[in-house]
Amino acid sequence: FRQPFNLAKPCKRFVFYLHNVAYDGDNTDNATSAAIVNPLGLGDFSFGKFVIMDNPVTMDQNMLSEQVARVQGFFFYHGKTKYDTWLSWSVVFNSTQHKGALNIMGENAFMEPTRDLPVVGGTGDFVMTRGIATFMTDLVEGSKYFRVKMDIKLYECYY
Amino acid sequence: FRQPFNLAKPCKRFVFYLHNVAYDGDNTDNATSAAIVNPLGLGDFSFGKFVIMDNPVTMDQNMLSEQVARVQGFFFYHGKTKYDTWLSWSVVFNSTQHKGALNIMGENAFMEPTRDLPVVGGTGDFVMTRGIATFMTDLVEGSKYFRVKMDIKLYECYY
Repeated sequence: FRQPFNLAKPCKRFVFYLHNVAYDGDNTDNATSAAIVNPLGLGDFSFGKFVIMDNPVTMDQNMLSEQVARVQGFFFYHGKTKYDTWLSWSVVFNSTQHKGALNIMGENAFMEPTRDLPVVGGTGDFVMTRGIATFMTDLVEGSKYFRVKMDIKLYECYY
Repeated sequence: FRQPFNLAKPCKRFVFYLHNVAYDGDNTDNATSAAIVNPLGLGDFSFGKFVIMDNPVTMDQNMLSEQVARVQGFFFYHGKTKYDTWLSWSVVFNSTQHKGALNIMGENAFMEPTRDLPVVGGTGDFVMTRGIATFMTDLVEGSKYFRVKMDIKLYECYY
């Protein structure tokens, strides 16, 4: 039987914020994500809307603070009776402190206060890593901006 | 060296059915999935068709039986000379028995009698899990409905 890990003692942990500025056709300079497919009209909760993102990550809630990583990937809406999304993205580090990426995928019912998604793999400093990312929506400003707090706990670390 | 697992003895196993009702523009109430991109016309096997799904899962073949989980995610067609799909989705449990999700991704040549896809991660009761999902197409009714039998075998379990 495999050596159990201790949920309370991740071998590595990151707590930081991703900032998403939706492209609205005019904000090319500031936009960090954009819908490549618009809602289908199946229900009233954006079913089918598919968003690609390349978002900055900072240690605090200020989008203009020093960028420590980027979140690159996609999410889409799949709820017919409530807002529900599914996502797959990478947290990509390129700083003096960390080099490499963490890959996260799964169900993100973002109306829930907290959501867990698995970290299914990594590269560089995070090669062969796995763990759990807990997402908490920190701020939503209509359809223009949202900020998500990510609490990433790794349970398999090799560096 | 890691303790090898025994393919014949998964630590957990689920055998159940997912039900997919395709949206046809009129069946908003019953639809459980919809194409957000239609075939490109590259070959005659729906290349490029991209489907988002939020499908019920039951223990038997009756779609109206008690729902034990939902399958949320996407699949798309990528075959030029035959029907072939690639998918990534979560089996999301929210019952008294199980809480959490299993994440599956990979090639799904659904014309084959059985297909294996990896379970690459999990959350909740399935945190840090991995295994294999064997899919068998159980029924196809034109482009309106299909049912897939999923035999999910986990080889790394902690709960």
